[in-house]
Amino acid sequence: VTSTDGYLNRREALSSALAIGCTASGLFGSTVLSATGMESMIDSVNPRLFSFVGGATGPWRVTSSKAIVGEPMPEVSNLQIVNVDVPIASSNQWVLRGITSNERYATREEKNLLLQKQAPIGRPAASLSALIPIRKNAKWWALTQDERRAIFEERSHHVSIGLKYLPAIARRLHHCRDLAETEPFDFLTLFDYDNSNEAAFDDMLAELRATEEWKFIDREVDIRLVKA
Amino acid sequence: VTSTDGYLNRREALSSALAIGCTASGLFGSTVLSATGMESMIDSVNPRLFSFVGGATGPWRVTSSKAIVGEPMPEVSNLQIVNVDVPIASSNQWVLRGITSNERYATREEKNLLLQKQAPIGRPAASLSALIPIRKNAKWWALTQDERRAIFEERSHHVSIGLKYLPAIARRLHHCRDLAETEPFDFLTLFDYDNSNEAAFDDMLAELRATEEWKFIDREVDIRLVKA
Repeated sequence: VTSTDGYLNRREALSSALAIGCTASGLFGSTVLSATGMESMIDSVNPRLFSFVGGATGPWRVTSSKAIVGEPMPEVSNLQIVNVDVPIASSNQWVLRGITSNERYATREEKNLLLQKQAPIGRPAASLSALIPIRKNAKWWALTQDERRAIFEERSHHVSIGLKYLPAIARRLHHCRDLAETEPFDFLTLFDYDNSNEAAFDDMLAELRATEEWKFIDREVDIRLVKA
Repeated sequence: VTSTDGYLNRREALSSALAIGCTASGLFGSTVLSATGMESMIDSVNPRLFSFVGGATGPWRVTSSKAIVGEPMPEVSNLQIVNVDVPIASSNQWVLRGITSNERYATREEKNLLLQKQAPIGRPAASLSALIPIRKNAKWWALTQDERRAIFEERSHHVSIGLKYLPAIARRLHHCRDLAETEPFDFLTLFDYDNSNEAAFDDMLAELRATEEWKFIDREVDIRLVKA
């Protein structure tokens, strides 16, 4: 996976973040990044962290951005996806950050089915992509694990629905809820697929959005992307 | 809960963090904190984040610090617990950070039992405290939710053991695994209790450490504290 595919590894992200004029707006103020600063940044950042940078540049062109529930995201022309922490800077319209983590609901049987069928994000033929940030409401987070699992799978068939669309649709889930800085969403899901599977992707979203699980979603934005 | 109890709320933490000479060593370098910087810091930090600051000052005096599994923590005389983000500074020996979150394993039945019996951290009579940072190994995190639950409760009785010691032992769990910056532990558990319950607390730890769940722990430090 190289930058020509629209994805960057952690070292490639170094020059990329510098190129987009990345400045640090951490908790305590701003410091202009140096290349040395970026090197030490990469070493201290959790390797499972990804930043989705909306702005005027980036290898993904935004073809549409729709609020499904709640507030929309500010409009941007391009998106960059990097495996490092990118704080908001004047040259970027927005940054969403999320972290890949252990799965919270799948059983071993479901996980084995997923492993048999799923494809990784970043296949060269997957020229279409979608970033779907969602936030679940306080009622969801107050449920216990068994209650959330029952809604997620036994009543909403989240894994079963997803399985039907594998391997055509690749998916990577990023968690934002437990980052130290307040984030506007709980999850960022990134999908990619080729042109022939765009209708199937829409069908999958329609199925998921009709479930009981989706009644707990209080913000969802659907951002569609094409390889620039 | 006030600072005289050894706990600080978010606004009290402002002056406290300034008093301990807190400087920002974020991802990109260091900036000396201003009061204004602290105000904006508090607004951007997830309200569920806590920092445990080991150093020469703080309302908790460290009476012992023992590595149970893996590397010990550097020795410090005191600990401060604040509900904000405190980056490491020269005046502090170390900072551990963690975030309270939704529960990952308890069923509704177990949760109801816990809610009936549990006490909050910070009771005035609870003059003894323990901070127990742990890290679980890669094998644990590769398990599926049902496999982790089976080890956690059906085979290790984590909740059942804990319930026996309520309300004498109060507990607050902080997650570190999914923070954006790499942290040395996955969980920080804070306990408090009065003098008469110290032996019971040791019994509880002995029970937990003998379980199958604890075979997945590859680092554990047991830090005992007394109100200074």
